Amino acid sequence: MRKPRIVVLGAGYAGLMTVTRLQKQISTSEAEIVLVNRDDYHYETTWLHEASAGTLHHDRVRYQVRDVIDNNKVKFVQDTVEDIKREEKKVLLGSGEELEYDYLVVGLGAIPETFGIPGLHEHAFMIKNINSSRQIREHIEYAFASYNMDEVKDDSKLTIVVGGAGFTGIELLGELANRVPELCREYDIDYKKTRLICVEAAPMVLPGFDEELVKYAVAQLEKKGVEFRIGTAVKEATETGVIVGKGEDEVEEIKSATVIWAAGVRGNPVIEKAGFENMRGRVKVRPDLRSIEHDEVFIIGDSSLMINEEVNRPYPPTAQIAMQQGELTAKNVAALLKGNNDLASFTPDLKGTVCSLGEDDAIGLVFGKKLYGTSASFMKKMVDNRALFMVGGPGLVFKKGKFKFM
Amino acid sequence: MRKPRIVVLGAGYAGLMTVTRLQKQISTSEAEIVLVNRDDYHYETTWLHEASAGTLHHDRVRYQVRDVIDNNKVKFVQDTVEDIKREEKKVLLGSGEELEYDYLVVGLGAIPETFGIPGLHEHAFMIKNINSSRQIREHIEYAFASYNMDEVKDDSKLTIVVGGAGFTGIELLGELANRVPELCREYDIDYKKTRLICVEAAPMVLPGFDEELVKYAVAQLEKKGVEFRIGTAVKEATETGVIVGKGEDEVEEIKSATVIWAAGVRGNPVIEKAGFENMRGRVKVRPDLRSIEHDEVFIIGDSSLMINEEVNRPYPPTAQIAMQQGELTAKNVAALLKGNNDLASFTPDLKGTVCSLGEDDAIGLVFGKKLYGTSASFMKKMVDNRALFMVGGPGLVFKKGKFKFM
Repeated sequence: MRKPRIVVLGAGYAGLMTVTRLQKQISTSEAEIVLVNRDDYHYETTWLHEASAGTLHHDRVRYQVRDVIDNNKVKFVQDTVEDIKREEKKVLLGSGEELEYDYLVVGLGAIPETFGIPGLHEHAFMIKNINSSRQIREHIEYAFASYNMDEVKDDSKLTIVVGGAGFTGIELLGELANRVPELCREYDIDYKKTRLICVEAAPMVLPGFDEELVKYAVAQLEKKGVEFRIGTAVKEATETGVIVGKGEDEVEEIKSATVIWAAGVRGNPVIEKAGFENMRGRVKVRPDLRSIEHDEVFIIGDSSLMINEEVNRPYPPTAQIAMQQGELTAKNVAALLKGNNDLASFTPDLKGTVCSLGEDDAIGLVFGKKLYGTSASFMKKMVDNRALFMVGGPGLVFKKGKFKFM
Repeated sequence: MRKPRIVVLGAGYAGLMTVTRLQKQISTSEAEIVLVNRDDYHYETTWLHEASAGTLHHDRVRYQVRDVIDNNKVKFVQDTVEDIKREEKKVLLGSGEELEYDYLVVGLGAIPETFGIPGLHEHAFMIKNINSSRQIREHIEYAFASYNMDEVKDDSKLTIVVGGAGFTGIELLGELANRVPELCREYDIDYKKTRLICVEAAPMVLPGFDEELVKYAVAQLEKKGVEFRIGTAVKEATETGVIVGKGEDEVEEIKSATVIWAAGVRGNPVIEKAGFENMRGRVKVRPDLRSIEHDEVFIIGDSSLMINEEVNRPYPPTAQIAMQQGELTAKNVAALLKGNNDLASFTPDLKGTVCSLGEDDAIGLVFGKKLYGTSASFMKKMVDNRALFMVGGPGLVFKKGKFKFM
């Protein structure tokens, strides 16, 4: 009789936390653990805005999966996931191989949501992963490097438009506001010719966040040169910039060589392809994080959807929740393996949220307390370091952690 | 009566050497010295291939003009030169201002020569100055950064074509051969997918150089992955690469996102515009470096053309000769000012030539002695440091010099 096989899809916050916890809870004789991931590294999705702006090197934002898993217990397969054949209990990989499972953990993450706005896929950059982040960094750098070569100067090369004033958009703007003056020095460019514009369709910045903190964030970013166009929708991205408008009538083109779309995410398309009942690629799960349709399939991180009963809205797709779900899933899979069907339910333990405004500034609500400036910035770095600690212990924190405090 | 005014055009090797020597030889009561240059900095033209490849930061390749001139004696004007009105003894500047002179020193340098090959201006990069060099660096970096983002990989993003196997072409290839493996590590690219191709119409590499040294250079560069296409002309540069051919029949397209044209120079177009008798923008001068037509106009550096009587061919446009001409011009201008019309003649003191093959390798003929590898590489750095010393003394050498020896 072969050992039961646990297949974990994705080495993001959810999947990697599942594996690093699970490998401590079961022995090699009890089950085989297989982790599938496209890259041989994990990256910190919540730090990608820094790699994109060029304020933190992308190698600081990733680490090798094999460095944090127990390679005697976990088989790591570097491949893409093409489909999940749920009835046959098989995962189809990009290489064409099929991987049978007895237990499946789906942590396939999210992709940018474009809401059908034309031109975004062709003309806008999106913060998806290491590859896209360093492309954005180099694109901006190339635009600045080219500026002085044109006989007729094209100021749109120095204009960066960020679509979205949510968490990612605001954090990205904070980094870019710090980066642009550096680029001006590097390429002998007059800072006054640069523009950093945030376009947001919603009537507010950081919806749902404390109003006083949001006011602080907007004022700080404006001080650093960010222009906010709130209540203004991106209608279309073009080769030369974006067309934005308030309502149908007031339509305007913002000429920009760099449009970065950062206005929300949807679940990985594999979820839809595999036929799970879903909302925008995210699957509603049972309290124990299993698929409603399958007793052997756990769905976690951005692949899952959990309703916050208090406000009757889904919990946001955050690293904090993904990691907590990974921890619980490891526990529940181990229980099932040991024949215990009484699984634990997931309750997020929300410690708070910190939104960075560049390396030197942030806002946060932590344990119900409002934080500004350096104390929020310190807290943000602690949050980032904690994520490293959870997966790789103190060694990983020393290797990849953030220790440059004010 | 106003003081005689000496106007020096260009702060390249020739012009800057003229000014730094002249300011020591005449007093402020004797004459006014005006130096005109497009940028507020001087750059080492002979190091631009390093800045272009990205192996040396462009700030290491330039220094402020005001830091090496005596600002009490020399008036520095940052402007472009549009025309020289020789009969009126006036220089027309880009700002529209006119600058009268009593003595003029023209050191306006060179621009790339494209020999009328179609598409080069639109689709090829050229090593002209700091602006173009850092654009090349960033263009290559962006191409590598983008590679992994494409669903269907475009290997032409990893192919760099260098047009020309002369001095600049070979030195650039040496740097690129060192840089490409670094870029592969930076952007997770398989080095085997990269290509570095040198296309040269002439039947040989480094024509005129010692055969044995050339053989060494080619072997060393080939070992580092450079493909040589000798006796092969660039027929056209296109949006997707270059069309090359041996003769009329064998025509081939090399797909490449980065074509760098480095196959020779011609004099600054202002020379032709001003109506000097010239050959490709370079003016034949008297032995004392004055224009044949004007007693008050010196023409030096790449703007001038001197015949090497021994071989009945022009001396090559090198920094070594430009600097020596600057020294002599300072002396001759000072003599004229003091009423002495018996000017000294220019004889180049050719100490030798060193051609770098990357930071770690070189070939050279110095005082008639052949040098290879580390000793040639050491000598190359000494040559570079000497150029700094000549203009700015030991301070400039310490600030900008090259001291990373093997």
